[in-house]
Amino acid sequence: MIEECLKNVRENHPLIHNITNYVTVNDVANVELACGASPIMADEVLEVEEITSICQGLNINIGTLNTRTIEAMKVAGKKAAFLHHALLLDPVGAGASHLRTDTALSLLAETHFDVIRGNVSELKALALQSADTHGVDASAADVVTADNLDQMITFVKDYAHERNCIVAMTGAIDLVADDQQCYVITNGTKAMSGITGTGCMLSGLMCAYLAANKEHPLEACAAATMVMGLAGEIGLSHLASYEGNSSYRDHIIDAISLMDEKTLKAGARYEIR
Amino acid sequence: MIEECLKNVRENHPLIHNITNYVTVNDVANVELACGASPIMADEVLEVEEITSICQGLNINIGTLNTRTIEAMKVAGKKAAFLHHALLLDPVGAGASHLRTDTALSLLAETHFDVIRGNVSELKALALQSADTHGVDASAADVVTADNLDQMITFVKDYAHERNCIVAMTGAIDLVADDQQCYVITNGTKAMSGITGTGCMLSGLMCAYLAANKEHPLEACAAATMVMGLAGEIGLSHLASYEGNSSYRDHIIDAISLMDEKTLKAGARYEIR
Amino acid sequence: MIEECLKNVRENHPLIHNITNYVTVNDVANVELACGASPIMADEVLEVEEITSICQGLNINIGTLNTRTIEAMKVAGKKAAFLHHALLLDPVGAGASHLRTDTALSLLAETHFDVIRGNVSELKALALQSADTHGVDASAADVVTADNLDQMITFVKDYAHERNCIVAMTGAIDLVADDQQCYVITNGTKAMSGITGTGCMLSGLMCAYLAANKEHPLEACAAATMVMGLAGEIGLSHLASYEGNSSYRDHIIDAISLMDEKTLKAGARYEIR
Repeated sequence: MIEECLKNVRENHPLIHNITNYVTVNDVANVELACGASPIMADEVLEVEEITSICQGLNINIGTLNTRTIEAMKVAGKKAAFLHHALLLDPVGAGASHLRTDTALSLLAETHFDVIRGNVSELKALALQSADTHGVDASAADVVTADNLDQMITFVKDYAHERNCIVAMTGAIDLVADDQQCYVITNGTKAMSGITGTGCMLSGLMCAYLAANKEHPLEACAAATMVMGLAGEIGLSHLASYEGNSSYRDHIIDAISLMDEKTLKAGARYEIR
Repeated sequence: MIEECLKNVRENHPLIHNITNYVTVNDVANVELACGASPIMADEVLEVEEITSICQGLNINIGTLNTRTIEAMKVAGKKAAFLHHALLLDPVGAGASHLRTDTALSLLAETHFDVIRGNVSELKALALQSADTHGVDASAADVVTADNLDQMITFVKDYAHERNCIVAMTGAIDLVADDQQCYVITNGTKAMSGITGTGCMLSGLMCAYLAANKEHPLEACAAATMVMGLAGEIGLSHLASYEGNSSYRDHIIDAISLMDEKTLKAGARYEIR
Repeated sequence: MIEECLKNVRENHPLIHNITNYVTVNDVANVELACGASPIMADEVLEVEEITSICQGLNINIGTLNTRTIEAMKVAGKKAAFLHHALLLDPVGAGASHLRTDTALSLLAETHFDVIRGNVSELKALALQSADTHGVDASAADVVTADNLDQMITFVKDYAHERNCIVAMTGAIDLVADDQQCYVITNGTKAMSGITGTGCMLSGLMCAYLAANKEHPLEACAAATMVMGLAGEIGLSHLASYEGNSSYRDHIIDAISLMDEKTLKAGARYEIR
């Protein structure tokens, strides 16, 4: 199934509308192209309904939000939900400011999202409405480890139940869950946290996977997470001794663009809990 | 003449004002530097007249437009036209929303542009005011092929006549025409469509070429198109087996920065119709 | 001391709030991660006080400013100054428009910055309120050379005295001074000027160095400048014959991410005047 999700993106070329931050937007666009999708970025309220209507998915990322783009997120979100498009929220920096937390919560209240993808601190900020964040990065205390794994699985399943959606909590160990099942994914590398935007890239990728696999949303989100993590491992294997975080970013996107079903099948490391 | 256009950019270092989208802006800046020009980005209406006045060219790209930047585009466009600067419009996503189509058409109505550069779908949306777009990419049906080449050449020449400007329609085959002559350019690779922003990059490059070759605008636009396509071919030749679309983008910009007259002369593939 | 500044960034992981332009923002984020800091970008006035409060440094860069973000810069600047955070101003394009010059001057009037970092033309525009700029690049006439070095050192020390801050004037020769001492730094390469954003990247890096070395601000700013220049030299040494400005950018950021105390100590070239 996991490999089939990859195949479906490459065959269906879903068009993804992204309302996303200006820090990592270029990488998000290139990652979506790399996986077989087509990106379009548009955040003007006057056009977002029309733009999202011609797409199959909407990826809302609240990094570098402002009052103008928040309005566009809300309008686009409602339209995409009405059209049953694949709808993903990346609550970048939730917990770091009231504006971010409140915007994410009000988007979730107004529109049904198929999936919420964030780090531990961001998801805690939304679910528990209390957070200890380190800006846009997870707090050092917020790490999924072997010791707290059971507890974290319960947390994401509960939050998935509460929101009636898929919750993808990414970090050293990635948890992708609905209220019944949780994929515990151990692909990825520590070095990925030294690059800006790996979370944003994964959100773009996940939205594309979801849009091309509407019948299997949980598998689609899990597959996207494995692709990203595995690309991180493959990219690292090609890093020359004089290469650092900037080249690593390129190697990761490259690996996504070259990823095939066989490589994914051989490299995916997960269990279902 | 084609090689001379390249030389003139490297010798004159034109300063180019870009009002462009935030997705590919960094690549546009690096491409302009790569070809020998200097970029400046500014989209605040309070400063665009002043900024454009110190430049030699203005590159307007409507991707990620908003009401604030549309106003800046109009004000800057009028000023640049008044000063007889090289003026290029890239109607990104025309046809994908009314706002984009209308903005492009109203810019064209208010200001004389020296060149319009877009893909087939975008140019059809403007010329025929009916379009079948795939977001910011050309529709699959909108491809210049050996079969429809004559018809497409007539289309671009007619549109160039109607708008009294140069029309550059880029895709698998690139057509760069005024109302008399059409350069049919076959440089480039299929893989270039797997990178975000190759169109935006070409617009930035073309504006720089135009600014440094005001006496030969058609040749300048054709030369820029050949440079971009040839850089795509050279870049591909340096792609390692483990490299994909992200590294390819770097290789293309690299090849533009290393492009010399001899390489361009040897590699340019075109006929004039 | 220089090497200790590097070590302190890597050990303290300062969180840096950046209000910066959308052209080079991704590179700034990756450079800050490369040196050991964490970036957060936020420019909405409703959240900037809260965001900057959780950080240790604020990097304000006025490239692609607009009326909305200028307001955010002012509000964030005051809050960061009140909290005694490391505060840096990069007056991109000062002298190229009245809006940029006036914005930089009014930020300086309202808030005390620890350091102003710009090229010769930008700093002259602010200090002398008369300038000959080439857009966002220094004018060809504005170069620090062996011939005018004494005069330039006096200029930066005087301006540092006037503003009661550190002044970093970067170009072929970099001068980093307070009113008493001037580091004359000769690291760096000519090719760095062929990449967009090396100045912006240095500002991000310098703000991180300052935030992690509050007791030694002048040394911190000098060290950041040496790291950037040395990374330019190291990056160039890894440039393949077919690589140009785009790959060079990656090599530079890579070199920053791999920079260690020993390499910095061996490679730093400066005298104190």
